[in-house]
Amino acid sequence: MTTDAVALSADLIRCPSVTPKEGGALVLLESVLSAAGFACTRVDRGGVPNLFARWGEKGGKTFGFNGHTDVVPVGDAAAWTHDPFDGEIIDGVLWGRGATDMKTGVAAFVAAAVDFVRATPPEGAIVLAITGDEEGLGKDGTRALLDWMAAEGEAMSVCLVGEPTCPDQLGQMMKIGRRGSMTFYIEAEGVQGHSAYPHRARNPLHALVALLGRMTAQPLDRGTQHFEPSTLQITTIDCGNPANNVIPAKARATVNIRFNDAHSSETIESWARGLMTDLTGQTGVSFALKTEVSGESFLTPPGEFVSLVSRAIVSETGVVPELSTTGGTSDARFIKDHCPVLEFGLVGKTMHQVDERVEVSQIEALKRIYTRILRDYFA
Amino acid sequence: MTTDAVALSADLIRCPSVTPKEGGALVLLESVLSAAGFACTRVDRGGVPNLFARWGEKGGKTFGFNGHTDVVPVGDAAAWTHDPFDGEIIDGVLWGRGATDMKTGVAAFVAAAVDFVRATPPEGAIVLAITGDEEGLGKDGTRALLDWMAAEGEAMSVCLVGEPTCPDQLGQMMKIGRRGSMTFYIEAEGVQGHSAYPHRARNPLHALVALLGRMTAQPLDRGTQHFEPSTLQITTIDCGNPANNVIPAKARATVNIRFNDAHSSETIESWARGLMTDLTGQTGVSFALKTEVSGESFLTPPGEFVSLVSRAIVSETGVVPELSTTGGTSDARFIKDHCPVLEFGLVGKTMHQVDERVEVSQIEALKRIYTRILRDYFA
Repeated sequence: MTTDAVALSADLIRCPSVTPKEGGALVLLESVLSAAGFACTRVDRGGVPNLFARWGEKGGKTFGFNGHTDVVPVGDAAAWTHDPFDGEIIDGVLWGRGATDMKTGVAAFVAAAVDFVRATPPEGAIVLAITGDEEGLGKDGTRALLDWMAAEGEAMSVCLVGEPTCPDQLGQMMKIGRRGSMTFYIEAEGVQGHSAYPHRARNPLHALVALLGRMTAQPLDRGTQHFEPSTLQITTIDCGNPANNVIPAKARATVNIRFNDAHSSETIESWARGLMTDLTGQTGVSFALKTEVSGESFLTPPGEFVSLVSRAIVSETGVVPELSTTGGTSDARFIKDHCPVLEFGLVGKTMHQVDERVEVSQIEALKRIYTRILRDYFA
Repeated sequence: MTTDAVALSADLIRCPSVTPKEGGALVLLESVLSAAGFACTRVDRGGVPNLFARWGEKGGKTFGFNGHTDVVPVGDAAAWTHDPFDGEIIDGVLWGRGATDMKTGVAAFVAAAVDFVRATPPEGAIVLAITGDEEGLGKDGTRALLDWMAAEGEAMSVCLVGEPTCPDQLGQMMKIGRRGSMTFYIEAEGVQGHSAYPHRARNPLHALVALLGRMTAQPLDRGTQHFEPSTLQITTIDCGNPANNVIPAKARATVNIRFNDAHSSETIESWARGLMTDLTGQTGVSFALKTEVSGESFLTPPGEFVSLVSRAIVSETGVVPELSTTGGTSDARFIKDHCPVLEFGLVGKTMHQVDERVEVSQIEALKRIYTRILRDYFA
């Protein structure tokens, strides 16, 4: 008996698990995994449902999978061709919210793991860390699982995240790292005055424009071996002064930065503070800076684990995956502090959209890839 | 019999003529002027009271005075030492709203003109154009008087505005011109997007920062023979984007410019449009510009009229007046299109403040200066 990843995908789609609702998804997975001999533990925190499952003994060679069962809202429900929570399969296509992001990915690695341990029990352990909050704040999702694992002496030797990673074709791309992300909240404070007598005032907008001009004049870098150039974007500037004959006292700006492995949030903040100090010296306008770091950049450099996953993809699809570090952030940013982490999954084209859907043959192929990865890893 | 400029000042202060209220001020002046043989006409427009008065025939050599009887609000009424509309004289000081700006100036030139035509009727005419809206919008104030005069064939050969012009000491400064003032309302429009993928968006804030950076990088000029350097101040930048992962589609900025006679509003607008065109070419971000011109710069260059006024000031005060073009705007900006215009009046220190006040001896001195100007002009 093998586990049908397509049927499991459809069953998961039928669980209305919009973040942070469990919707029956983790309960379903727990029953499937328990039946196959996985030791399951619910690691809920702060109202977020999370599921940890292990097959095999802890302490040895352990392969980890990570994914999430929560989904984004359906958006315009009336615009869907098929009910987003019906999990209908029509002409070989599975429709519904989570069909690519990422109930199918979870179903594929759960089915692969269950069948693998039944058919060829490995020497070592397989661990599944599945969260119900990746699309939301993520504060009590994969981070709660990792915290709990650390406290329990649970560890993964390597981890594969099943997020959709392919732009157009299955096998096309895997993620070996991600850029870091941080946000500056800047406030410039000068001295208010009459716009006809600027020598009696200190215009915070002029200093802010000079600061932002310097921040954006040159790219932060030209990219690194595995990363595209870092980017810096001003996302808002606000002052709210209605009087055109008044120089305002204060102005604010927000700057979002996606940075590669040429930087850390610390080096970037230090660079920004240096610019501010210079400008304060030149203008007398003071700056207050608040920095929020969503995640540092990270890289699992090409090596044994990357080659193993890459070979499995080529064998099953005939496509050589690009080793990419593009895109936003994912829960891999938390896992990288614990073990080497890679991301590989389906084509993400319809994710977060109305009529999210995937060909069922792709789910089956993804299960075969995950199975081959497990086989090669424990060989 | 001579006219008491101090008593007339106090009577005017007792008229509560906060813009645009007439408050009895122009009615009082009309009675004083009519009694002295001035032909008076109320030239009210758009709810604003204005008074035109002429002694002598029209069409010949005509000396004009301009001023206003409206005053700014009292502000914190409880903070005044004396009631702002009582016109009290205590220890040689006249207290009240309008004591410097500029009921005293109006009283001084009215008293000077009335006494002068009675004592030594000149060959020519004296014209008084007095408005009840200089502190407000000014749309229907001195402009209404000038429009009406043009329509009626009334003209001034020269005009003296009685606004307070001296920083500390009577006689210290006269205005021979004013900077122009204009405001840019700029809107930058790009293409919205995700801040992690800026190559798919066009950030209007980056283009706006670049534009404002170029506008503020260099002074517009280093000043001219009679003018201080022009100034350009950003008074607000607003975007209102609350999402730090979103590149906004639009952003706005306001820029206020005070410009000297090296420029006109047209040359400055043309310069700004050139910068915008360049940046649109470089960034793909488009700019929409709305320009508001409050007034062009103007200058009554040193010459016969300036010397005449200057000599009168020196003779009566012993102080040589600085020929200045500093400060904000005044109604002289409208008059300069009709005849040479200068401004000279009291020390303006307490204008627009609580406890506005002036020494009565200053009012008497100002009347003497205006009288000497009339005598010399018609000599």
